[in-house]
Amino acid sequence: MEDSYTLIGKGINRVDAVAKVTGKAKYCSDYFEPDLLVGMVLRSPYAHAKIKNIDTKEAEKLEGVEAVLTYKTVPNTKFPTAGHPYSLDPSHRDIEDYSLLTDKARFVGDAVAAVVATDELIAKKALKLIKIDYEVLPFVTDQEEAIKEGAPIIHKERPNNIISDFGITVGDPEKVFENADKIYKNQYETQIVQHCQMETHNTIAKIDEKDRLVIITSTQIPHIVRRIVSQACNLPIGKIRVIKPYVGGGFGGKQDAVIEPLTAAMCLAVNGRPVRLQLSREEAIIASRTRHAMRVNIKLALSKDNKIEGYDIENLVNNGAYASHGHSIAMSAGSKIRPLYDIKAEKYRPKTIYTNLPVAGAMRAYGIPQICFVIECMVEDVCTDLNIDPIDFRLNNFIKEGHIDKASNLVVRTFGLPECLKRGRKLIDWDRKRNLYKNQKGPIRKGVGMACFSYFSGTWPVSLEAAGTRIVMNQDGSVQVQVGATEIGQGSDTVLSQMAAETIGIPFDMVTLVSNQDTDVTPFDSGAYASRQSFIAGQAVKKAATEVKRKVLEIASDKCGLDRELLDIKDGKIIEKGIKREIYTLKEIAMEAYYDKEKYAPITSDLTVKVKNNAIAYGATFVEVEVDIRTGKIKVLDIYNIHDSGKILNKKLAEGQVDGGVSMALGFALSEKFIIDEKTGAVINNNLLHYKIPTIMDTPKINSEFVDTYDPTSSYGQKSLGENTTISPAPAIRNAVLNATGVAFNKLPMDPQSVFEKFKEVGLI
Amino acid sequence: MEDSYTLIGKGINRVDAVAKVTGKAKYCSDYFEPDLLVGMVLRSPYAHAKIKNIDTKEAEKLEGVEAVLTYKTVPNTKFPTAGHPYSLDPSHRDIEDYSLLTDKARFVGDAVAAVVATDELIAKKALKLIKIDYEVLPFVTDQEEAIKEGAPIIHKERPNNIISDFGITVGDPEKVFENADKIYKNQYETQIVQHCQMETHNTIAKIDEKDRLVIITSTQIPHIVRRIVSQACNLPIGKIRVIKPYVGGGFGGKQDAVIEPLTAAMCLAVNGRPVRLQLSREEAIIASRTRHAMRVNIKLALSKDNKIEGYDIENLVNNGAYASHGHSIAMSAGSKIRPLYDIKAEKYRPKTIYTNLPVAGAMRAYGIPQICFVIECMVEDVCTDLNIDPIDFRLNNFIKEGHIDKASNLVVRTFGLPECLKRGRKLIDWDRKRNLYKNQKGPIRKGVGMACFSYFSGTWPVSLEAAGTRIVMNQDGSVQVQVGATEIGQGSDTVLSQMAAETIGIPFDMVTLVSNQDTDVTPFDSGAYASRQSFIAGQAVKKAATEVKRKVLEIASDKCGLDRELLDIKDGKIIEKGIKREIYTLKEIAMEAYYDKEKYAPITSDLTVKVKNNAIAYGATFVEVEVDIRTGKIKVLDIYNIHDSGKILNKKLAEGQVDGGVSMALGFALSEKFIIDEKTGAVINNNLLHYKIPTIMDTPKINSEFVDTYDPTSSYGQKSLGENTTISPAPAIRNAVLNATGVAFNKLPMDPQSVFEKFKEVGLI
Repeated sequence: MEDSYTLIGKGINRVDAVAKVTGKAKYCSDYFEPDLLVGMVLRSPYAHAKIKNIDTKEAEKLEGVEAVLTYKTVPNTKFPTAGHPYSLDPSHRDIEDYSLLTDKARFVGDAVAAVVATDELIAKKALKLIKIDYEVLPFVTDQEEAIKEGAPIIHKERPNNIISDFGITVGDPEKVFENADKIYKNQYETQIVQHCQMETHNTIAKIDEKDRLVIITSTQIPHIVRRIVSQACNLPIGKIRVIKPYVGGGFGGKQDAVIEPLTAAMCLAVNGRPVRLQLSREEAIIASRTRHAMRVNIKLALSKDNKIEGYDIENLVNNGAYASHGHSIAMSAGSKIRPLYDIKAEKYRPKTIYTNLPVAGAMRAYGIPQICFVIECMVEDVCTDLNIDPIDFRLNNFIKEGHIDKASNLVVRTFGLPECLKRGRKLIDWDRKRNLYKNQKGPIRKGVGMACFSYFSGTWPVSLEAAGTRIVMNQDGSVQVQVGATEIGQGSDTVLSQMAAETIGIPFDMVTLVSNQDTDVTPFDSGAYASRQSFIAGQAVKKAATEVKRKVLEIASDKCGLDRELLDIKDGKIIEKGIKREIYTLKEIAMEAYYDKEKYAPITSDLTVKVKNNAIAYGATFVEVEVDIRTGKIKVLDIYNIHDSGKILNKKLAEGQVDGGVSMALGFALSEKFIIDEKTGAVINNNLLHYKIPTIMDTPKINSEFVDTYDPTSSYGQKSLGENTTISPAPAIRNAVLNATGVAFNKLPMDPQSVFEKFKEVGLI
Repeated sequence: MEDSYTLIGKGINRVDAVAKVTGKAKYCSDYFEPDLLVGMVLRSPYAHAKIKNIDTKEAEKLEGVEAVLTYKTVPNTKFPTAGHPYSLDPSHRDIEDYSLLTDKARFVGDAVAAVVATDELIAKKALKLIKIDYEVLPFVTDQEEAIKEGAPIIHKERPNNIISDFGITVGDPEKVFENADKIYKNQYETQIVQHCQMETHNTIAKIDEKDRLVIITSTQIPHIVRRIVSQACNLPIGKIRVIKPYVGGGFGGKQDAVIEPLTAAMCLAVNGRPVRLQLSREEAIIASRTRHAMRVNIKLALSKDNKIEGYDIENLVNNGAYASHGHSIAMSAGSKIRPLYDIKAEKYRPKTIYTNLPVAGAMRAYGIPQICFVIECMVEDVCTDLNIDPIDFRLNNFIKEGHIDKASNLVVRTFGLPECLKRGRKLIDWDRKRNLYKNQKGPIRKGVGMACFSYFSGTWPVSLEAAGTRIVMNQDGSVQVQVGATEIGQGSDTVLSQMAAETIGIPFDMVTLVSNQDTDVTPFDSGAYASRQSFIAGQAVKKAATEVKRKVLEIASDKCGLDRELLDIKDGKIIEKGIKREIYTLKEIAMEAYYDKEKYAPITSDLTVKVKNNAIAYGATFVEVEVDIRTGKIKVLDIYNIHDSGKILNKKLAEGQVDGGVSMALGFALSEKFIIDEKTGAVINNNLLHYKIPTIMDTPKINSEFVDTYDPTSSYGQKSLGENTTISPAPAIRNAVLNATGVAFNKLPMDPQSVFEKFKEVGLI
């Protein structure tokens, strides 16, 4: 099966590599319109405050100000911003709690007014001229505080501040805990971090010559943005066109209609003239989306033979001021980690809670890095308590191939995780080092640690999984491929091109993938998220390419008289399968298709698949760290991410995903966090000087390994990889630090200050 | 059938009306690229000259000059420029006689070198610095001279200067002429005219971020331009993308790759940087395309009962220096006029001849205005000789419904021409005025005249007739329609939108037709010519819309349980046919199609039709003129074009076509011509001051009438109209002048100078 591939599995260079390094790829910033106006947003200085009065007269008078918008002048529809495919089932729809501009600020940075002006300086001046009389309200930033009696009510529709507390029970947790040999309990906690994509949110809106609203935007989800803008601005969806240029990173932060609806409203406020709204870095950090902080109380039931029998997980999720993706992330966190250890029962009790903080939403791996931290710390702590080797313990507890997840009914068809652990054990020199690093003294101590995870390849069966592809064959046998799946830096254009070329049977350079989605002509697809591109869109590309191949062979068969089954396409030529005789070039057939006066038609395929399937991917991180006891500084000496992501479509790109995902996880583990001013509720480190993402100087060489499995339900054996890479490094590092120092950090990040304080607390210094 | 239409036949405003009058529609001139370079062409001052030496050193040295191109530095492939669909039959392909830049100038204006520079001034300076040493050769401008022994040889591949003399014989002409009661002979002649589109040829070429050549061009034929540039520049067709913005008029002059190949070569010469080449008006007049001058010797055989038994037509066609559409136009001229009078036999003997003049190519009605002038003058002269009423004579000679054209086997299914004549007779008050205007004296004399024609609706069976349409239904039930058929001002976007809305069953404003063709994503279609848009592309739109409707009704049927045959779509709602019960909105069904998690798919249709059919359209012009004997000035007092174009899709647009076509014909009849300097072969009136197209001051009110017929093979009963409108006015005016003055003008134009001279010659003054 996979051995016969000529392009799948090859380390082909990105199709957009040259375009990007030469600056030729056009991002949203590179789009200009004559007389492009500048939009800017006035943001609340208060974490919680009602607008009593708003006076825009002075701002409006300023020369160069074209419009001033407030909640009074924009449509007051409440709408959801989450980049989810719409659901026909009302109970599965996102919460409609966001308005274009609010009459009540719910976090420091909430959009209370906006200005459209001829340039940025005037817009900034105008913002200062807007006078707002606020009634300042008490606010709450901690999720646990927010659900206490008497806490400030953030949305009157949910007086207890709970967005949802829908949970899940699998098996009979009561019985499992009753019969457990041992029960472990602990609390683990993760912080708020931010995506910090290289390109901040950037949108142009204009009314075109056909009187339709055109939105050019840096998004992961053009088709969903179209629907959300339609709802927010009360425009028929057919009167909206969304164009996605090259995108400088999404990571989930652009799986959300963060600024598109407001930019559209700005454009409508100036009679359809073009307006650009681009978030500054400071705005992007606080006013786009963040990763949910989670505070988790976990109980683990262990049997006499050291088998994990079940969990009871209470998860308090800090969602910030608006729902965005809301409870979906808590639910994803609970479900995607489940097909890992062979538990008998689980009680998962999440609460997704409004607070007066920036809005949490989708971020790479959608809740799993948090919950993986919890599980993999807990497991490590159990092993420490039992003095069992954590790898052996895990291997003893894993599910097996053929496992069926009790909640989702998903089947584990391939399970390369034990092999991942075997490889990692060897690569990090585990047995020798674990022994060597016992009982270290002195200021510099080393440790090795590991953690593992499970993840899905899409959102089925929770959500619709639709993907569309259109392929058009040119006269020379080359093809253009249009996909709804969006390239946002992850490399999907490249692997989808590989797939098309592989399946049709043409050289890679005969495929042109149309990179910029345009909802007027791009096949429907919900976009880039859930690591769904290669798994979901891959099925659409394969199906469309197969149809193209079939049509080519039908014409060839008609011409040469041989049955279609006897023919094949190899390297752009139609051959007779058995004797491998070349019969026609693809160009000859394509020319017949185009130019035969009576028969045939140009060869195209235009289809949408609805995928009812999901493949569970696995992986593990092995890491060696060095801890400076005196400074609290943790240095990663060596790190390996080892993935079972099925067939690796393109090793170069896969390694790139690991590089990016691990680097992001290093920040999550060691340095990144929102620092909240307790007095105001403001994020005081809303810039890249004080918000500490790892620089290249902080980043060790990141190593990746891939275990070969081949998912039989997948188009080319592949499973998800993109988000997976960022899941397990944080707990692996934490477990390595535990190995090095004997100190268990149960709260992220392990930044020098926190580590230093903890070392003081436990008496190490 | 037609009575049940809700949108077809309605005078709906153009979909691009507001865009065009507000300046929002982007033409090629409105496209800009950063650092867009300017291309300019050096043109030969000699009608015929070999380049002995070409020195570009000084030009290259000039600051701001990025490239200088000559025949030595560009690919030397010879290619055809005609906008014909490619033919798999080599004998039907266009003549490959054109090169990007020539080493031998064949007319004054031939492109001998080109410059790419940072601005226009520098480019102009650089052109002057190119030194060319010419060997000046004798030249020939008259087609009859060009085929004489010893004439200068223009292309060595055709030493007799004849591009083709392929003709056609129908029936037994020898016998017909033998048995004829009377034989009439005469010579008629038409001049060279030019399209003078409001927008001259304009092209941008650049290499995009994917290393593909992108051509943005004002063209009628984007898909054909792609193929021709591929051939001219030796690039695979899949590496080329052609984008057609809004176009400011084509009239056939942009059914030719006039400047795209050279612009591409300019771009390649500067490493893919963007270059614009735009023809000045002076260049466009002489260096794009012209209408073929024809000198026709015709013999007509008449029976005793005044029936036209047959013709013998010798047609000497002046093609200018390169083949372009070449002999196709002579052949079209011969064939499209044939299903008019019920002749028994015909000998058609065209010769398409190279001369040292600007290149003749396609122009509105593709040879028929010339040949219609011949036939309709001849018929008038016969009537004059016999003293028979010309209308009665024609009615007596017309073919009948059911007629089968002997050469093409096309069937005349509808024949509204007798009705056109009946209406015209009444409208112009024919019988009274013909009598009244007999034997006038004095300096101002009036006359009425008429002429009629037949025309086709596409190019079948001569050429491939392929048209593609893709329709995508949005979540709200509205649709985007992509067509390969190009809007060039004629209104095709509007009527194709009407068709899509009509067939699906939705309001007109729920259709968005994607106006700008982009060969990467636009369905294949050979473009706008041969008045094929509504007839040919109409079949594709109807088929795709029908498929969309079927898919909608399948989902509706699946949901409601009623058989699909019982359901229909009316005004955006799914109804039960009999009792007209509304069951669903279209939006409800579209939402299911998109968002049902397991079933259905977004509703699209993507198809190409190959049409094997043609419908013959008819029409007549009735005109009243006033002739000033003293000045030779002919004034059109009243003019009616009365068309049988099948079902009129949109009367507003149909009237617009008549206005434009008649106005163009007025120029052809009365004022337009190339004035050639006999000493140099140069066109000396290559500007709009001296080349006399009628202004609004010269143009009378133009009246249009449409006779209702309904072609059963057509998608909505329609037949061609666009080009038809310009065919019969010139002979009608000539015949009216004959009625007024008794003078038969057998040569166009009847400009005051020529008329004055003729009046002197015949002794009227």
